[in-house]
Amino acid sequence: MNTRRLWLAMVWLVAATHARSEEIRVPETAGFDAASVPAYAGQHTSVYAHIDENLDVHLSHLVRWVRQPSISAQNVGVREMARLLVGDLQNLGFSEVTLVESAGHPGVWGYYDANAEKTLVIYMMYDVQPVNPEDWRVPPFAGEVVDHALGKVLMARAATNQKGPERAFLNALASVIAVAGTLPVNLMVLAEGEEELGSPNFPEIVAGYAERLRTADGVFFPFNSQTPSGDVSLFLGVKGIVYFELEANGSSSGGPETAEIHGSYKAIADAPAWRLVQALASLTSIDGNVIEVPGYYDSIRAPSEEEVWVFNGGVASWEQREADIRKGFGIAEWIDGIAGRRSLATLTFGTTLNIDGIWGGYTGAGVKTILPHKATAKLDSRLVPDQTPTEALRLIRAHLDANGFTDIVLRKISGYPPAQTSVDAPLVRAALGVFNKHGTTPSLSVRIAGSAPYYVFTDLGLPLIAAGMGLGAGAHAPDEYMVIEPIAGSRVAGLAEVEKFYVDLLYALAAAR
Amino acid sequence: MNTRRLWLAMVWLVAATHARSEEIRVPETAGFDAASVPAYAGQHTSVYAHIDENLDVHLSHLVRWVRQPSISAQNVGVREMARLLVGDLQNLGFSEVTLVESAGHPGVWGYYDANAEKTLVIYMMYDVQPVNPEDWRVPPFAGEVVDHALGKVLMARAATNQKGPERAFLNALASVIAVAGTLPVNLMVLAEGEEELGSPNFPEIVAGYAERLRTADGVFFPFNSQTPSGDVSLFLGVKGIVYFELEANGSSSGGPETAEIHGSYKAIADAPAWRLVQALASLTSIDGNVIEVPGYYDSIRAPSEEEVWVFNGGVASWEQREADIRKGFGIAEWIDGIAGRRSLATLTFGTTLNIDGIWGGYTGAGVKTILPHKATAKLDSRLVPDQTPTEALRLIRAHLDANGFTDIVLRKISGYPPAQTSVDAPLVRAALGVFNKHGTTPSLSVRIAGSAPYYVFTDLGLPLIAAGMGLGAGAHAPDEYMVIEPIAGSRVAGLAEVEKFYVDLLYALAAAR
Repeated sequence: MNTRRLWLAMVWLVAATHARSEEIRVPETAGFDAASVPAYAGQHTSVYAHIDENLDVHLSHLVRWVRQPSISAQNVGVREMARLLVGDLQNLGFSEVTLVESAGHPGVWGYYDANAEKTLVIYMMYDVQPVNPEDWRVPPFAGEVVDHALGKVLMARAATNQKGPERAFLNALASVIAVAGTLPVNLMVLAEGEEELGSPNFPEIVAGYAERLRTADGVFFPFNSQTPSGDVSLFLGVKGIVYFELEANGSSSGGPETAEIHGSYKAIADAPAWRLVQALASLTSIDGNVIEVPGYYDSIRAPSEEEVWVFNGGVASWEQREADIRKGFGIAEWIDGIAGRRSLATLTFGTTLNIDGIWGGYTGAGVKTILPHKATAKLDSRLVPDQTPTEALRLIRAHLDANGFTDIVLRKISGYPPAQTSVDAPLVRAALGVFNKHGTTPSLSVRIAGSAPYYVFTDLGLPLIAAGMGLGAGAHAPDEYMVIEPIAGSRVAGLAEVEKFYVDLLYALAAAR
Repeated sequence: MNTRRLWLAMVWLVAATHARSEEIRVPETAGFDAASVPAYAGQHTSVYAHIDENLDVHLSHLVRWVRQPSISAQNVGVREMARLLVGDLQNLGFSEVTLVESAGHPGVWGYYDANAEKTLVIYMMYDVQPVNPEDWRVPPFAGEVVDHALGKVLMARAATNQKGPERAFLNALASVIAVAGTLPVNLMVLAEGEEELGSPNFPEIVAGYAERLRTADGVFFPFNSQTPSGDVSLFLGVKGIVYFELEANGSSSGGPETAEIHGSYKAIADAPAWRLVQALASLTSIDGNVIEVPGYYDSIRAPSEEEVWVFNGGVASWEQREADIRKGFGIAEWIDGIAGRRSLATLTFGTTLNIDGIWGGYTGAGVKTILPHKATAKLDSRLVPDQTPTEALRLIRAHLDANGFTDIVLRKISGYPPAQTSVDAPLVRAALGVFNKHGTTPSLSVRIAGSAPYYVFTDLGLPLIAAGMGLGAGAHAPDEYMVIEPIAGSRVAGLAEVEKFYVDLLYALAAAR
């Protein structure tokens, strides 16, 4: 850390103690420049050639994977897909391959012993979202390669989320092993079949391998990171989340206990719907944008000096993109008219309290006059360091109780803390170097506004990135695809280059200091 | 009005200016005793005998009516039923019978000229609720008479709501005309085929006959008023209602305009769902029971001296029933723990603001993290004199605007003012006298907490009651029925007595001064 950065960080820490979460201001100090990381210089010509020569076989592996449905929500083909993954890891020469039973769909553990100094963990998900085949251009589990504006694409459920990049990564391993006899790093594969269900059993699966995972150098999630223009975004963190329901009902709030009653009795009957509305309203400012729960912002730590550095390096990219994002959402202005570094700061460092859904009583057309016996809201709060789900819910419960809303039921649905990776981690440096080699310097963000349970790895002290060349779209939607062979002149990587990126990453990590 | 009542009314008016709608207190002055109205003394033996002798034919008319489906919501048999009514009125000797076209299903107008001093308007509805035949013990349009715990009943859609009592009323007319050659009062029949749709076109139909209706002495709606124990409740008024939606959406509230977005963007995106919650919360106290819209209670007039009198006469009956009503609703306590005259006062004289339904975003099981682009609530407010739908919505809009909720869309769905009939109206006095003759002194209420568009008649200066002997149940539900022949010892009237009540009412009204 140079002296200038240290001094600026101290200024920031002082400023941060006065910052209210309503308006997060980040000091305009130097920004991290991902282009300053030296491009990875290694050339693995024989491996690249092996990939090119075997590309049809490699593509056939992707097709084989997407042809195996594995819809976790409907328990369709899930265990078959787990077994298919087990077989593929065994064929690659993994010395340990285990189906890990859990309370839900099984996980898969694999270990490849390369007798190497470094060890990389590969996080995989092998389950997929449900499909409505009638909405698709091709049968979603046929594994067809079709023409698309971006080139030839594999169009199928899981083509990009996540079987495409995952199996491409295994193809890269196959070519490395075929040419070099082994890998440059040891690998631990940990896969789950419940990602689309919110990973309810993955923490337990990870816990079973915690001691071995701690010895690794990082966690990698094969991911198609490119946009149609070829640009790459890379994030170093995710927010946590706590998802919960608030409910007012006749049993606790007064009013009818088991069923709606005639609305005219509102004159003398308590109404759960009003109680829910009043309880919800007590949680935020009148514009819905400041959380009025005492202490809710207290556990949010100021951005670290490194986070400020990365943040400032990402502002320009955000400024180029944010108007398009707003337009895509049909949003005229962000809250309070903020833009540029101010909106990025709030998006990056701010917690949230969001109503995902609310319902009660009659919601059809026209008139029905009832006093509903129950009203419910689903809420989520995105958590930034050092917020925790437990503390967030404790504060909300305490606030409700302090304001007389002891009748409001608070039901936790799920939750996990945020996760953060340092830009200085060898895995991150290696990835940036490889991206620079491939001519796609990423725009880097401290964290995305969304959530993922990466804490299961980062809490073990492991850096984690989801990265890769390649492009896909349609996750959770019809006509999901991954580009296999881009049109001429495109900066988007095809399957061969996606795999070569993975090859380079393994060697770059092995060489990292 | 005696001096004591006048004095107490003045005390009350002073008190009322200080009353807050949160707690409506009614002075504990003398109560009206319906038993004090002299029992109707007329005996119409020949007519009664004619009913008894023709009861099978009379029942066959009810059966014929319920066998004609007339589901307004599904446009099944509606016009056929209107024509059937037209034919029946013609057969009875109505000198004018007209199908009244409207923007929806037609109305029916009929005039029976008895060359009498008094004229009674009969309000009828000839449409019925939809059915789920599989939920019924008998086919809902077969018109079967079956055994029931209460006796022999006609079980069919509309048996009690409203064809049973309506056709029983026409049977009564037939017997009077057969014996006496004409009726003791002139009759105006005004029927609609859209009651189950909220009577959207009935005001227009009524308006076409307004000048002639004004000359009448009251409006009667044939109605099975008895409970299984034989008791009768009679109400003199209905509340009005205004039904509306409040909606927050991305176009007006900021946030995404056309579709949900990823929930993580709450960090920098406005959320319509929060805006709706905040706007709703601004409308009431934290317990949901006091309307915080400035001026909302201002147009509520104090209960009249007569209303206080009727109210006090009804408290004892309410006190006997309210615990059972609460228990039926599964409500532990009314708001603020009120009971007895306090709960009845609020139910009778209080306005309401009720959430009938609320919805937005994801309302399924589990987790979906979205920021919904829209959230909507359905609300209704029950209106007491002199509130109006227009003024109620104007105040709510003004309150929203004054609190910065100009982004919240307010959509009126429907609305109409309250309606009130005086206990001193000759029609009411006549009905009470006839009830007393039949041994069923009604418990009288100033108004029910519910709403009906009776203003179309009362605004013409006409008193209106919905009354009759008889018992039915299952309106809007399967196995709807009307008792035809009660079990031995029952205080419930069978079809013959129901018709005799109507006969007596016509003569009692003719004789009323």
